[in-house]
Amino acid sequence: MNSRPRPLRPRYRSHPAAIIAASFAAVIAAGTGLLMLPIAKEGPGGATFLEALFTATSAVCVTGHIIVDTPVFWAPFGHAIILLLIQIGGIGVMSIATLLGLLVARRLGLRTRLTAVSETHTVGLGDVRRVITRVVLIALVVETVVALLLTARWWLGYDYGFAHALWHGVFHAVSSFNNAGFALYSDSLMGFVADPWITLPISGAVILGGLGFSVILELLRRYRLPRLWTLTTTTVLVGTGVLLIGGTVAITALEWDNPGTLGALEPQERLLAGFVAAVMPRTAGFNNLDISAMHPTTWLLHDVLMFIGAGPASTAGGLKITTFAVLFFIVLTELRGGTAVNMFGKRLPRSVHREAITIALVSVALVVASTAFIMLISDHGLDRILFEVISAFATVGLSTGITASLPEAAQAVLILLMFIGRLGPVALGSALALRREQRLYELPKERPVIG
Amino acid sequence: MNSRPRPLRPRYRSHPAAIIAASFAAVIAAGTGLLMLPIAKEGPGGATFLEALFTATSAVCVTGHIIVDTPVFWAPFGHAIILLLIQIGGIGVMSIATLLGLLVARRLGLRTRLTAVSETHTVGLGDVRRVITRVVLIALVVETVVALLLTARWWLGYDYGFAHALWHGVFHAVSSFNNAGFALYSDSLMGFVADPWITLPISGAVILGGLGFSVILELLRRYRLPRLWTLTTTTVLVGTGVLLIGGTVAITALEWDNPGTLGALEPQERLLAGFVAAVMPRTAGFNNLDISAMHPTTWLLHDVLMFIGAGPASTAGGLKITTFAVLFFIVLTELRGGTAVNMFGKRLPRSVHREAITIALVSVALVVASTAFIMLISDHGLDRILFEVISAFATVGLSTGITASLPEAAQAVLILLMFIGRLGPVALGSALALRREQRLYELPKERPVIG
Ligand SMILES: [K+]
Ligand SMILES: [K+]
Repeated sequence: MNSRPRPLRPRYRSHPAAIIAASFAAVIAAGTGLLMLPIAKEGPGGATFLEALFTATSAVCVTGHIIVDTPVFWAPFGHAIILLLIQIGGIGVMSIATLLGLLVARRLGLRTRLTAVSETHTVGLGDVRRVITRVVLIALVVETVVALLLTARWWLGYDYGFAHALWHGVFHAVSSFNNAGFALYSDSLMGFVADPWITLPISGAVILGGLGFSVILELLRRYRLPRLWTLTTTTVLVGTGVLLIGGTVAITALEWDNPGTLGALEPQERLLAGFVAAVMPRTAGFNNLDISAMHPTTWLLHDVLMFIGAGPASTAGGLKITTFAVLFFIVLTELRGGTAVNMFGKRLPRSVHREAITIALVSVALVVASTAFIMLISDHGLDRILFEVISAFATVGLSTGITASLPEAAQAVLILLMFIGRLGPVALGSALALRREQRLYELPKERPVIG
Repeated sequence: MNSRPRPLRPRYRSHPAAIIAASFAAVIAAGTGLLMLPIAKEGPGGATFLEALFTATSAVCVTGHIIVDTPVFWAPFGHAIILLLIQIGGIGVMSIATLLGLLVARRLGLRTRLTAVSETHTVGLGDVRRVITRVVLIALVVETVVALLLTARWWLGYDYGFAHALWHGVFHAVSSFNNAGFALYSDSLMGFVADPWITLPISGAVILGGLGFSVILELLRRYRLPRLWTLTTTTVLVGTGVLLIGGTVAITALEWDNPGTLGALEPQERLLAGFVAAVMPRTAGFNNLDISAMHPTTWLLHDVLMFIGAGPASTAGGLKITTFAVLFFIVLTELRGGTAVNMFGKRLPRSVHREAITIALVSVALVVASTAFIMLISDHGLDRILFEVISAFATVGLSTGITASLPEAAQAVLILLMFIGRLGPVALGSALALRREQRLYELPKERPVIG
């Protein structure tokens, strides 16, 4: 099943993952160095190594977790470095995930939007250039449009000078399309909770970034022909719709009367705020409401939304909608008593079942182990620490407000989680698909009693 | 795959599950009625409907969750009713799970200890009699031995009169073999934490009850021939060993210095106490340590142990070791790049992969939804409520001490969870294995990008 001649395998076995991890680590190291320069920080002296490393990792992994207050702690040079790291990280992860998906598709002989014309079984320099060019183009177009909308609003609707409005517009447009969640306001977007001219363009950029490159490309080319869409596109679009609508309804209902969040707003503003609050856990990380004031049940809902995340080859993190959808349809098929797992009119290969299970269970194990470790060395309850861990792993960046006060060992775990969470599912998903071996013999079959 | 001629299916489709659920409900209803009699309760008046229903459900589902203090609230008649309900529930669930496993094995043509001589494709009255007789026999033998040991200790080592010691011996022997967790002491086994003559016989009964009927039977007949053991037996024995050793080490390490738990004991008593504490979450529900004083990280460890549970067709609850092992070996196979999932020298049929993931995900969904609901209507944090919910679903009965003070709606959810958790995985596991349909056509295959 999906086996290939042996001589070809070793080339793809560990190299791509190692190269990708090393590249990300190098960018993070450079960013850490730059952020430690005194010019990057407000006031006298420079940032500590941990402050700079945490911030650089958070930016490159487009997470948005912070242990220092972005607008207050960092100087304009620091903000520019953060912006650059976000842009490199976002474009990097979209390109890498797209190229790995392309490699898998070609080696397994699958149809995707990008492989339709290709006859080779590998990914060459030409593909790399083509993918990166298109990713950059899409990023720049979306970011420019959103930056213009935000600039106009901050310039005309608030007291900002044009240059100030432009800078804020550019920063938040880049931060939102890349699902980075860094903001130039100490309270993130809470000051704009009732202003749709700020929160809706940002939400739009977040959602587009979370759809992922191949989905955006397919929508641009075949938006009128949904029957020709790949399974990935259909799944991501349906899943995004379900999670946005479900999330909006649930958050609005759970927080409606909470004076610390929606309860403080006019009733007609609550639906807007609830919608934006449902956009952010998947996995942008801006917050328009005070997360620390939310009901713990809403935190649990956030945990679920954050863990699922958005589309593959996108700027969002998490398990990805497709992984979750595969699991969902396996369960649905079993409960209905079917044999083949079908999803939106396509049959899933059996290998995908196990890959999805593997990614999900490895992620759960990592989250549980990290949560247990941080609980052991800090005084917070499971509510807040699970939220913090899932937020880092899914590169969301939301927090119940405990990040800065966690012990340094816990912050180091969060740094690792951001890095693993950013590259792990992508690398694992493609590695599993590429590494399939042919067994030369099979053991006798036996079924244990389960359940 | 595993398909059978259509005319045979409907007979097995919903009837067994409905009959089983109805039988359990009938026993619970009768138990509730008896427990509401004034004679069942100490002092004037009778128990309320909720108190009686909760206790009867907890006893029949061999959970041990309580909202009233067993020794103080109930009179001797009440204790006798509880003991009877535990015995009926424990023997019932072992017999039913064994018979369903037998039905699955015969219909799918599998080898198990009990089917070796059979040529039929169904389970008849003779099988029912034979299984129940053997289950009762094993239960009585184990319970008698443990009861004698406990009686001797309480009679000779403590100030108890013989009749009193005998009654306590019988009650706790039945409660422990059936993994019920009901105790005649307000602090469960905490008063005997340093007495191995009490805690070890109880632990032994708990472990034997958690191995399950078919494993005990196979051990009795082929204990010298591990090569001939069924996959279920090997998996349950290895899994039990791993979970007991790992649990003992982890709990002992986590609680070593905690003055509320192990820290109050002599160092040499701590390992005994740590071992017994590791036996109980799987899923006996006695406690020799103060659960409410444990570190929240230990609670999280309990959540994992409780959710996994012990063997299938046993008196324990949870997902079952076999279900968890199937998932574990799927992940291991994927990470190693293999195609066939092998477990202890046997190859797992693909249908089992999907059944295991279905049982796991449906259970996770139920636990998360119940946790969210109870969090919404009560004031406790995720730590305690998740513990409470998993404990009820896995029919463990341990608690961080909040059960009695939860709102009535939350207690009703716990009743439902005990019932679903007791019968759900068993019924789902066998229903999935029996309900497989042959697809007449297949959709085109397509692989989404995951991870
Ligand atoms: K983010
Ligand atoms: K129990």
